[in-house]
Amino acid sequence: MSKSLPKRSEDYSLWYNELVKRAGLAENAAVRGCMVIKPYGYAIWEKMQQTLDGMFKRTGHQNAYFPLFVPKSLFEAEEKNAEGFAKECAVVTHYRLQTDPEKPGKLRVDPNARLEEELVVRPTSEAIIWSTYKNWIQSYRDLPLLINQWANVVRWEMRTRLFLRTAEFLWQEGHTAHATAEEALAETRQMLDVYAEFAEEWMALPVVKGVKSENERFAGAIETYCIEALMQDGKALQAGTSHFLGQNFAKAFDVQFQSKEGTLEHVWGTSWGVSTRLMGALVMAHSDDEGLVLPPKLAPIQVVIVPIYKTGQLDELLERIRPMQQGLLERGISVKVDDRDTERPGFKFAEWEMKGVPVRLAVGMRDLDAGTVEVARRDTKEKMNLPLADIVQSVDQLLQDIQTNIYSKALRYREQHTTRVTTYEEFKQVLDTTAGFVLAPWDGTPETEERIKEETKATIRCLALNEPDEDGVDMLTGKPSARYAYFARAY
Amino acid sequence: MSKSLPKRSEDYSLWYNELVKRAGLAENAAVRGCMVIKPYGYAIWEKMQQTLDGMFKRTGHQNAYFPLFVPKSLFEAEEKNAEGFAKECAVVTHYRLQTDPEKPGKLRVDPNARLEEELVVRPTSEAIIWSTYKNWIQSYRDLPLLINQWANVVRWEMRTRLFLRTAEFLWQEGHTAHATAEEALAETRQMLDVYAEFAEEWMALPVVKGVKSENERFAGAIETYCIEALMQDGKALQAGTSHFLGQNFAKAFDVQFQSKEGTLEHVWGTSWGVSTRLMGALVMAHSDDEGLVLPPKLAPIQVVIVPIYKTGQLDELLERIRPMQQGLLERGISVKVDDRDTERPGFKFAEWEMKGVPVRLAVGMRDLDAGTVEVARRDTKEKMNLPLADIVQSVDQLLQDIQTNIYSKALRYREQHTTRVTTYEEFKQVLDTTAGFVLAPWDGTPETEERIKEETKATIRCLALNEPDEDGVDMLTGKPSARYAYFARAY
Repeated sequence: MSKSLPKRSEDYSLWYNELVKRAGLAENAAVRGCMVIKPYGYAIWEKMQQTLDGMFKRTGHQNAYFPLFVPKSLFEAEEKNAEGFAKECAVVTHYRLQTDPEKPGKLRVDPNARLEEELVVRPTSEAIIWSTYKNWIQSYRDLPLLINQWANVVRWEMRTRLFLRTAEFLWQEGHTAHATAEEALAETRQMLDVYAEFAEEWMALPVVKGVKSENERFAGAIETYCIEALMQDGKALQAGTSHFLGQNFAKAFDVQFQSKEGTLEHVWGTSWGVSTRLMGALVMAHSDDEGLVLPPKLAPIQVVIVPIYKTGQLDELLERIRPMQQGLLERGISVKVDDRDTERPGFKFAEWEMKGVPVRLAVGMRDLDAGTVEVARRDTKEKMNLPLADIVQSVDQLLQDIQTNIYSKALRYREQHTTRVTTYEEFKQVLDTTAGFVLAPWDGTPETEERIKEETKATIRCLALNEPDEDGVDMLTGKPSARYAYFARAY
Repeated sequence: MSKSLPKRSEDYSLWYNELVKRAGLAENAAVRGCMVIKPYGYAIWEKMQQTLDGMFKRTGHQNAYFPLFVPKSLFEAEEKNAEGFAKECAVVTHYRLQTDPEKPGKLRVDPNARLEEELVVRPTSEAIIWSTYKNWIQSYRDLPLLINQWANVVRWEMRTRLFLRTAEFLWQEGHTAHATAEEALAETRQMLDVYAEFAEEWMALPVVKGVKSENERFAGAIETYCIEALMQDGKALQAGTSHFLGQNFAKAFDVQFQSKEGTLEHVWGTSWGVSTRLMGALVMAHSDDEGLVLPPKLAPIQVVIVPIYKTGQLDELLERIRPMQQGLLERGISVKVDDRDTERPGFKFAEWEMKGVPVRLAVGMRDLDAGTVEVARRDTKEKMNLPLADIVQSVDQLLQDIQTNIYSKALRYREQHTTRVTTYEEFKQVLDTTAGFVLAPWDGTPETEERIKEETKATIRCLALNEPDEDGVDMLTGKPSARYAYFARAY
């Protein structure tokens, strides 16, 4: 903890990388483009998982597990999906290594153990799952089929960044099948709402709900819904997607059902996912130059107690701290007493600041005698002396306040960084100054979007669901525009 | 549910396969040797995971996540480990597919996207983890390092069976590092005890704790501890292993630490794991010719309520059932009311029997009026009429009784199928009649073990920890034997 972090204002990208490593969230692995998620980072991910899993189950979904490998012939069945992922997939071609006859002690692939059919390491599981659904669905009675999977997936990205873009990442992928387009669309929207609720209520991350343009649509989907968040450098981050697949996969894998009326029809599908990318969003949205700022609801440690003592007094002090610790635990607050006798308080303060623990209590004998505790909140860095008598109640309230404050701050930032423009000049100027979301009239064509991307590196993040139709003039082509789109440079 | 299961006595293997499929636990996937874990099977696995995860955390372990891929150069670093797994590993050689110029609409590996170094899909993660530990461990203060990972692994098995042996499976793998051999050994034993406790208390599966012979030792370990259980066909099943790795991986990956005394030393390691194989053990240990028998502590549905009603009465009856349902839920008992109006009670009874729900309540208007409920327990198939007034208390007690009874039954079976022999004639005769565990004197050599395996298909399951040393004569070679070993034919 000796060296301070790079400053956000000086090098945001370096700040992020250093913070992820020094807070103990993750690090680059020995395998190109892959990461090791370290215990503290994984503990946050576990909280995310548990929360989302509960939300999925309450909306009627069940977990299952499908294979890691997709045989090439299944992978290529849905043409657009295959085309979208073929360029970045890991392919297993052999099932054995043997001693290398030319290099003693080394191994090589056994040329006699070549697979008849190559296996793709799943970049997403529509293909393997829809080939299974074919056997699970015969009648309308089998629908809706509401399944989720927690899994690892692999996409061979060339430029990777911890959490934000890694060759292997962890995620959940929901895959549902329905009797009608309406039901599938309702599911798509419902899961978008679940994601938005999770982002806002748990991650304290305000999001824009919207629909992707054709260029940014999931390969194989009819429509991709998304939640988009803004990071502190004014760049957008796609935090979750929910796809209406229409009958594309049902047709590719011949999944039909007998309707109530006795006709044979293809089923309608959805898929939706969030990944360890959310960890990146969480870090970038709230943290500061001293380290992580975690929303209390996702913090593995919500309160840290640092004893302040003279040599030889630690045991006695710990004894006196215990009732407070116990009281917090009983209230369902996760608390850690940093009883290390090898480090000074200042070192401990800096370490827990780096790790984003929302509330810190510094407790000495004199405080206890006086019936007070020194309380520091991580988000505002305020310090206050609070009465020991109702410290549990105060800390509980403080945690709620912090959760709300972090959200409000992020929302305020987004509001200050969302700009409506009508001309391309304004558009470019905003991108290069305040950045953030730029709402601009768009003629609805992929060509215009592509040109804007080439010229400004900004893409359409979404057409927001709550944005009304509005006649206008495309800022670039001058053609009629029916909607303002959310543009931004993005992760 | 129309067709009955094959009988255990007639074809145990077919009975098992059919049961796994028809109870909705798992099925074979479109990928050779892989399985799809279906929602009901996955729900049991989730309960296992949650329970074990809690036990690991209470013993001081933290979860983390390491990459799926192991670069070949890391894979081959620990020679014995590499040798043990090289013959059955999936190898990624390419990172892209392209349109096949000779077959329109088909894909092939892009010959220009060959990896410089092949990646092995992890069959186990010692290599990747120890290469990471090298950076995490410098001083005795960094020890012990107590990490667990929940993950998928791949071993290219040629003959696969649902849950018992699949190319991909789910598991947890603990990987710990310690300052001394004693500490590492204590950890190895502690985790063996955790596994045994889980097997016995939760799975209701009695196990023998022991040490593997050299032939059956984990590739790269100094000593492999294991828990061994007996299935209803008299075959043994290894249900979990805990390995003392000595300094093997520390030396292979150069993981050294500065001791308190200032010397530089290699650390001592352990690894330990259980997998979805436990699902197979659970099924085979307790189930019968009517279907699954699940221990209540792991049953996703502990109580099913089947309404017995005349046409038109269902809604009214469900209304009257609600307080009972609510009472069970409040007691922490998972309960499902089978309110399907499309199936008859007999069909429902058979279905929930197949799925192994421990307690079934059949409830009609007349019963409720009379203040009784018909209760059926899955394990003994007993039926009884119990007073409605204290049904929650009765069911709770019954669930505990069932848990105990299933364990006792399995223990009795094991006791009846554990035979002590002194001659090879007896040994072979027992194997071909009662089967089960055969305790026999062994001279301690791999050669003798290998010969016995070739001649009888029985292997040494373990040298039990609670079995005292005992002078004897090897049943095959006549050489001196210091210990009786547990032999069995095994899964």
